Amino acid sequence: MNNIITIGREFGSGGRELGKRLSEKLGYAYYDKEIIPEIAKRTDLAEKYVASIVDRQPIIPYPIHIGGSILPFYSADTNVADREIFDQQEQIIKEYAQKSDCVIVGRCADYILRDYDPLRIFVYAHIENRIERCRKKSQGNEDLSDRALRKEIFKIDRSRAAYYNFYSGQEWGNKVYYDLMINTSNFEIKDIVERLCKYL
Amino acid sequence: MNNIITIGREFGSGGRELGKRLSEKLGYAYYDKEIIPEIAKRTDLAEKYVASIVDRQPIIPYPIHIGGSILPFYSADTNVADREIFDQQEQIIKEYAQKSDCVIVGRCADYILRDYDPLRIFVYAHIENRIERCRKKSQGNEDLSDRALRKEIFKIDRSRAAYYNFYSGQEWGNKVYYDLMINTSNFEIKDIVERLCKYL
Repeated sequence: MNNIITIGREFGSGGRELGKRLSEKLGYAYYDKEIIPEIAKRTDLAEKYVASIVDRQPIIPYPIHIGGSILPFYSADTNVADREIFDQQEQIIKEYAQKSDCVIVGRCADYILRDYDPLRIFVYAHIENRIERCRKKSQGNEDLSDRALRKEIFKIDRSRAAYYNFYSGQEWGNKVYYDLMINTSNFEIKDIVERLCKYL
Repeated sequence: MNNIITIGREFGSGGRELGKRLSEKLGYAYYDKEIIPEIAKRTDLAEKYVASIVDRQPIIPYPIHIGGSILPFYSADTNVADREIFDQQEQIIKEYAQKSDCVIVGRCADYILRDYDPLRIFVYAHIENRIERCRKKSQGNEDLSDRALRKEIFKIDRSRAAYYNFYSGQEWGNKVYYDLMINTSNFEIKDIVERLCKYL
């Protein structure tokens, strides 16, 4: 079986950079947004539309609770395109995992690949560090106040959580669902990656 | 400044073993229950009494909230011996940190040593794995049902959380307060330690 590393991440925590650098250091394939054109090709849906769906919450973002467990729920009303996109995403991610060692960022990959024994990493950071990181990376958003950035960051997190929770029936960012949780607040991503490669 | 590693841990997750092995591999000093006779000596309290206090929640286990921050609160009614013990513990842990590189398990050490820039690790595991681990390590408790063990494990966790939350004003096991969260469910402690040494 190939070595699979999945990375969940809070927005602005540097999870994407961590995943990218990690894949380069380890010589693994790297998948993140690469999946979107592939889904578009297979579903005949516009790339822009697929991109807008892949990270947002589904139309009916409530799970069903049965006997204390949370189960994902797809009603007849669930947007058909949403469902088709998720099915394709699931299929493509499994193909990636079968093809070679890889790092996959986001996309519920930890859940989708649960039978592939992935190392499930979650990357997070203090909100102040995330604001700082976003500010550094922002282009044209220099006018945004800390307050506005904070609001935007939490909004994106909520959207990621809703999407993940809905499709996986698990809880996004809850330590129970990850093997390793890394706080990037006080460290450089490249230093963490150096260490992480040795850990792995 | 010395290298300090603090380890918080869910009961039965193997955090203590991880800390001990890690200190041996790294050649660091290791502190856990060693602190109890030291406190007893300095306070003229019986060792048994100190031990009974050090891991249980204080008499008034509520923090005060001011402006969104949680501050530890010591009222005039707080048991004086409790307070004296915590003060001594704080003092002793700081002395450890000043003396040499070390691994300290539990004892709010991450909070007490917050100005010493420790690497703050939290060790956890799925409850089923913790039950299994407890069963393996138990002597004379072989009769305990899974249900009874689970109850006991959660009780100890609650006690640790109450103690930590009270004295630190932080939340025990909340990822925000740790640098690295390690799930031991699917791994051998000695393998994790091998990897962790390289990470460090």
